[in-house]
Amino acid sequence: MSTRSIDNLTARLNRLPGIGIKTAQRLAYHILDLDPDEVRGLAEALTDAKSRVHYCPVCGNYTEDELCSVCSDPKRDRSLICVVRDARDVSFMERMREFRGLYHVLGGTLSPMDGVGPDDIRISELLERVRGGEVKEVVLATNPDVEGEATAAYIAGKLKPMGIRTTRIAHGIPIGGNLEFVDEITLFKAMENRREV
Amino acid sequence: MSTRSIDNLTARLNRLPGIGIKTAQRLAYHILDLDPDEVRGLAEALTDAKSRVHYCPVCGNYTEDELCSVCSDPKRDRSLICVVRDARDVSFMERMREFRGLYHVLGGTLSPMDGVGPDDIRISELLERVRGGEVKEVVLATNPDVEGEATAAYIAGKLKPMGIRTTRIAHGIPIGGNLEFVDEITLFKAMENRREV
Repeated sequence: MSTRSIDNLTARLNRLPGIGIKTAQRLAYHILDLDPDEVRGLAEALTDAKSRVHYCPVCGNYTEDELCSVCSDPKRDRSLICVVRDARDVSFMERMREFRGLYHVLGGTLSPMDGVGPDDIRISELLERVRGGEVKEVVLATNPDVEGEATAAYIAGKLKPMGIRTTRIAHGIPIGGNLEFVDEITLFKAMENRREV
Repeated sequence: MSTRSIDNLTARLNRLPGIGIKTAQRLAYHILDLDPDEVRGLAEALTDAKSRVHYCPVCGNYTEDELCSVCSDPKRDRSLICVVRDARDVSFMERMREFRGLYHVLGGTLSPMDGVGPDDIRISELLERVRGGEVKEVVLATNPDVEGEATAAYIAGKLKPMGIRTTRIAHGIPIGGNLEFVDEITLFKAMENRREV
């Protein structure tokens, strides 16, 4: 019994991840009560982000310029590359403000079940960058799930013969975590990677 | 370390109710991965809803036409008016598909603490409609909270002297509800309004 525009807006909001039909309805009604400028601003933010943002041709990170802010920063260490699955993972890594190297976005992980092979993700581009000669270490920071581990192992197998130091981010108990709520595999990894204090 | 457009989109999504910063980020990244047509469709749905939808001049419900779909439906019972707080409440009432009367949206509830008095909500418009002579019953369906009850009592006090049947929607245990989780006031109302079986 809502109007056509309200139903259309609700349906489109409902297609976003994590937005159920009740939340979509609540958002739609909220939007009707907003200032017209605020609604126009949100609509423009949507289309602007979609039209202006593209992938950095070097590393695959999001950018609005030719190169991304990491690749174009002269202060970054060009001998170190951190490999991640998605462009969004770059901003998650950058939040720690400690990593001073470059990135390489794969754009996916190997998944034979879903028909994703080595040629479907940006592995050859990584090897090409490494062949340039400047790179000394590659940190594999794919997620610690089956596909992420398989992808890391595959890339390590390609980089080792090239004489490149290849490392994997550590797995273990999250800081502030509680042994009670940590799964067995993480606990096993944490024990396996224990260090002298 | 995201781009300007991504940060702007995230900030604007974050202003919506119930959308925290993490959800806003996740939505922004999801939107970057969508088809451009889908993003344009969502942006247009936002501005269309805002520009096309207005309030029905008779009852205050949302509409894109001159009168809302309820007021313009010749099959509705014009002798019965259901009073609700917000325009969105009309669609919640309509979901039950049983009410065949008209609506009257107050656009708020009396709240002396917030400086909302009888002249700030559409009470005089309701009395005007009732004075037309066609109305026989007014159902007060404001929410069962302090402001909703006070508003219902105030309106009932105005309608009674006009000889109009004035009713209040029933309070009680929700269907499928559990006594354990029902608050004391609801339980009290349910006992008070008990009926012969």
